[in-house]
Amino acid sequence: MALTGVLRPGFVQVRVLDMQAAIDHYTKRIGLHEVMTGEDGRVYLKSGDEFDHHSVILRKADHAGSDLMSFKVASEADLDSFEKRIVAYGYPVDHVPAGEQPGIGRRIGFTTASGHRFELYAHAEFSEPKPLIHNPDVWSVEPHGMGARRFDHALFYGPNVDENLDFFEKVLDFRCAERLDTPDGLLAIWLSCGMKAHDVAFVKHPEPSKTHHVSFELESWADVGHAADIITCYDISRDVGPTRHGITRGQTIYFFDPSGNRNEVFAGGYTYYPDSPTRTWDHTEIGKAIFYYERQLNEAFLSVVT
Amino acid sequence: MALTGVLRPGFVQVRVLDMQAAIDHYTKRIGLHEVMTGEDGRVYLKSGDEFDHHSVILRKADHAGSDLMSFKVASEADLDSFEKRIVAYGYPVDHVPAGEQPGIGRRIGFTTASGHRFELYAHAEFSEPKPLIHNPDVWSVEPHGMGARRFDHALFYGPNVDENLDFFEKVLDFRCAERLDTPDGLLAIWLSCGMKAHDVAFVKHPEPSKTHHVSFELESWADVGHAADIITCYDISRDVGPTRHGITRGQTIYFFDPSGNRNEVFAGGYTYYPDSPTRTWDHTEIGKAIFYYERQLNEAFLSVVT
Amino acid sequence: MALTGVLRPGFVQVRVLDMQAAIDHYTKRIGLHEVMTGEDGRVYLKSGDEFDHHSVILRKADHAGSDLMSFKVASEADLDSFEKRIVAYGYPVDHVPAGEQPGIGRRIGFTTASGHRFELYAHAEFSEPKPLIHNPDVWSVEPHGMGARRFDHALFYGPNVDENLDFFEKVLDFRCAERLDTPDGLLAIWLSCGMKAHDVAFVKHPEPSKTHHVSFELESWADVGHAADIITCYDISRDVGPTRHGITRGQTIYFFDPSGNRNEVFAGGYTYYPDSPTRTWDHTEIGKAIFYYERQLNEAFLSVVT
Amino acid sequence: MALTGVLRPGFVQVRVLDMQAAIDHYTKRIGLHEVMTGEDGRVYLKSGDEFDHHSVILRKADHAGSDLMSFKVASEADLDSFEKRIVAYGYPVDHVPAGEQPGIGRRIGFTTASGHRFELYAHAEFSEPKPLIHNPDVWSVEPHGMGARRFDHALFYGPNVDENLDFFEKVLDFRCAERLDTPDGLLAIWLSCGMKAHDVAFVKHPEPSKTHHVSFELESWADVGHAADIITCYDISRDVGPTRHGITRGQTIYFFDPSGNRNEVFAGGYTYYPDSPTRTWDHTEIGKAIFYYERQLNEAFLSVVT
Repeated sequence: MALTGVLRPGFVQVRVLDMQAAIDHYTKRIGLHEVMTGEDGRVYLKSGDEFDHHSVILRKADHAGSDLMSFKVASEADLDSFEKRIVAYGYPVDHVPAGEQPGIGRRIGFTTASGHRFELYAHAEFSEPKPLIHNPDVWSVEPHGMGARRFDHALFYGPNVDENLDFFEKVLDFRCAERLDTPDGLLAIWLSCGMKAHDVAFVKHPEPSKTHHVSFELESWADVGHAADIITCYDISRDVGPTRHGITRGQTIYFFDPSGNRNEVFAGGYTYYPDSPTRTWDHTEIGKAIFYYERQLNEAFLSVVT
Repeated sequence: MALTGVLRPGFVQVRVLDMQAAIDHYTKRIGLHEVMTGEDGRVYLKSGDEFDHHSVILRKADHAGSDLMSFKVASEADLDSFEKRIVAYGYPVDHVPAGEQPGIGRRIGFTTASGHRFELYAHAEFSEPKPLIHNPDVWSVEPHGMGARRFDHALFYGPNVDENLDFFEKVLDFRCAERLDTPDGLLAIWLSCGMKAHDVAFVKHPEPSKTHHVSFELESWADVGHAADIITCYDISRDVGPTRHGITRGQTIYFFDPSGNRNEVFAGGYTYYPDSPTRTWDHTEIGKAIFYYERQLNEAFLSVVT
Repeated sequence: MALTGVLRPGFVQVRVLDMQAAIDHYTKRIGLHEVMTGEDGRVYLKSGDEFDHHSVILRKADHAGSDLMSFKVASEADLDSFEKRIVAYGYPVDHVPAGEQPGIGRRIGFTTASGHRFELYAHAEFSEPKPLIHNPDVWSVEPHGMGARRFDHALFYGPNVDENLDFFEKVLDFRCAERLDTPDGLLAIWLSCGMKAHDVAFVKHPEPSKTHHVSFELESWADVGHAADIITCYDISRDVGPTRHGITRGQTIYFFDPSGNRNEVFAGGYTYYPDSPTRTWDHTEIGKAIFYYERQLNEAFLSVVT
Repeated sequence: MALTGVLRPGFVQVRVLDMQAAIDHYTKRIGLHEVMTGEDGRVYLKSGDEFDHHSVILRKADHAGSDLMSFKVASEADLDSFEKRIVAYGYPVDHVPAGEQPGIGRRIGFTTASGHRFELYAHAEFSEPKPLIHNPDVWSVEPHGMGARRFDHALFYGPNVDENLDFFEKVLDFRCAERLDTPDGLLAIWLSCGMKAHDVAFVKHPEPSKTHHVSFELESWADVGHAADIITCYDISRDVGPTRHGITRGQTIYFFDPSGNRNEVFAGGYTYYPDSPTRTWDHTEIGKAIFYYERQLNEAFLSVVT
């Protein structure tokens, strides 16, 4: 497979109301590690199984939600190429200098028709802990808490999902792994930039720029069960699960961080390839699409966003 | 991630001494499905979780081993492009017309410096059973036996591993996820064309064109355990495992089909990205590299090939 | 541990509306085996991991529910001893001759204050399939469907739970592993005759003689997940789960057979010993007691009984 | 099931060469908790899922092995009753006063024909951490390391296994769940005092009073895999596994503590009942009996004892 273009979700910047409570949640419970605190107070986190400097940034704010999601691209040349394509599509592009986030090179940013800020960058320094490289053990630091292995994807809510689909396919070379259509039109899309069933997803929603959840990957369904135990034992607010998604087949549980941001930890899901047909869902099976076992929706899951 | 080039392992053609025993082994035990028998007696198999027409071909022969491994590429244009690059590298390319294998388009073939025949093709029809596409359940047919989800990779033995590395990287755009070097030079390489830790691997061996194993992917370590039960209950010849590889982190068990071809079923392994550093191993930790728990090699594992 | 007295749940007789649909459900989906059909049309089922003749009897009837639950005791002398103790407690005892159910010896029967018929018997013939005894493989028949390993327990609804507790403790030598008390008094009890957290349980309910569910044991949480896939893929009516119970810690999923009888398959739960303190729950945590992850009750779970 | 007699393995006293290394091994790696250090320097450990004061005692000594294994009985009256039966069988009984081990009541001790010291006691105080009792969460302390849930059993080597079988059955009311016979006579026995496939086991060996391993129970095969990762990552000396035993069906891995005592962690195994037939093995399948997947013995496993 050619190695140019958008590689994967790089990081997400999450707004939190109480920084220490947020750090405890993402490190002790979800299992990330604290890399450093920046001069402006933002806190940088990563999984011990990620090489790059960080994958989650916590920013103190007065309301929950996420500021931006950034994708890592394969090269500086890709950055230039994507800038041209984005501008040609009609979206303004801004530039964030290297070092605005420690360990991350220059970034280009833009806003999709759904109102969400995305960024691309090509360079990240490594930080500790990270996977071992020479005669590597399976981990350099014993996993803890839920044992999250990576920031995996995010799901955003906003208008103009059709345009987002067109943009991500035509400009960023993503592919649509699954889509959900209702008699009122396209309701939701799951987009892949590689071999995962989704790297980002969008659900149609009247208000722009909303975040449904940020998601972390676990090793197995056994770990989803352990995460569920942690959620109850530490009295974390649970949303839904353990269950499976019909869409992507992921085995999942949803819960909220102390600021009210929805998190997911999940395992599994099929391997996607560019020649995989787009799986399609219609309104008769929305319940099964979202919650495969319950086969019905949960109103809060659809309406509570940050 | 750009979508051109080699997508994945497509199929492997395995030589078997007793066709019915082989069909029973690969379908009832490993969990594949029989798609059809060709006019020349070759039998075509697939997992119920694969879209394409087949992923394993069984050919009756008087000695075990594999005839060839084929990769699927993203487009017909890629086929032409790769043909030029292969020829430019100095390897002759031959052409196999569409239909030589049912459901598969034209193929180009060539032999690597290790003596192995590889092929590329861009077109495959779908066959049943395959994953559902509209309002899909998690399977169209309930998994059985070991529950193999796909033909995942193969490991080959032969000379000139250095040249194979050079060829796969420069001509086919693979990347080296892991390598094992000894004081005598490069011993083995694990090559990825996508986000898996390996799609094909080579170990240095004096005799060319040898096959160590063909491997099928399972969902989890729980399934590796179930596979181990099946292996003993049905008196299948086991080689090694259940264990884990240090290389790729895969959780694995090895066994032999009734003709003496080594099979692997495995689960897990890390997600590889093109910017992941190549993991390197040296001779001091070969044991751990291969069998992470045993931390020592098994002579038969190194020397028995077909 | 002394070996006299009630050993375990032996069998449950379930009323079904459509016999063939019931057989398909309990064999193909839950994973039991059909042993035989009796002259009166009752169908006898068992798990391949149970020695005794059968553990579930299906009886064609015009409404769902269960007729009786029988416990196996260690000896004929125990039968006589328990008969005296039951009569001394004030409950009439009736006698069912050997052979009323094929493969089962004489039984004594009685009705508890909750209106449920229970029986005791000391003799059961073995039937196939059963665990191997000499140089045994882990199974004589490969598990299928949900892979149920045994009929494990039942939960009944009815009045006079206090008296049931007194009777099972004093007369049958059961112990109360867990109990749930509300300001209105004792609401529910989980009773053990051995080392499992429960062998039978009762919930206070105005109407006597009701059955909440019959439960089958699985190997692991991985199997609970697989059961959930089967439930959706075969469009079986699901009630609740996958989740965990606070009470017993069992990892569970509930669903209905085609006649409307509630089934549970579950894994895990702690090991109970006679010197384990009774775990107690109060009304402030009923939700967590029943559904540990949801931490709230589901009205249908409390009110739908057969 | 009647509640008198021997309930379960209570504790084992293990000799260690380096106390701090032993504490680290049993707590950080196996997942036990340190309860206290006695005045004589012995260190008391337990799992967070055990109620009683301790289940492992570490004693500093100049050679590895175990001093004794104690079983908990249901009542003081049982202690007196067993003392009479043991003396009547011809074995001297000695008395250990309450408090010789903190939190443990009076004990009676005796030596079996295999040369091993066993003890019985009826009283143990609870210690922290232990399972919660009122509105209990699934754990009071998050599991760590391998997550051992209890000291489960021990396997001893010594002469006169036939007499041990007779003694445990006739005097202590154990039952023989499995036995292994060779043309030279009875080689090994697995004895149950409850519903587990074994609580203690013996293998014929010329030298008396030897310990093969002490074993800790884990929740699942997934945990056995995690234990294997811990063993390699922390460079713990592994003996065998992950594998399964044919005998008991336990899924297992063996390793050594820093003093050379063999440990096992395992999951699963069938549920044993007093009316379960004794599973029998003969010399033709010793390999499969011990290591179900390998189907052959490992010389060190048979000969290295402490």
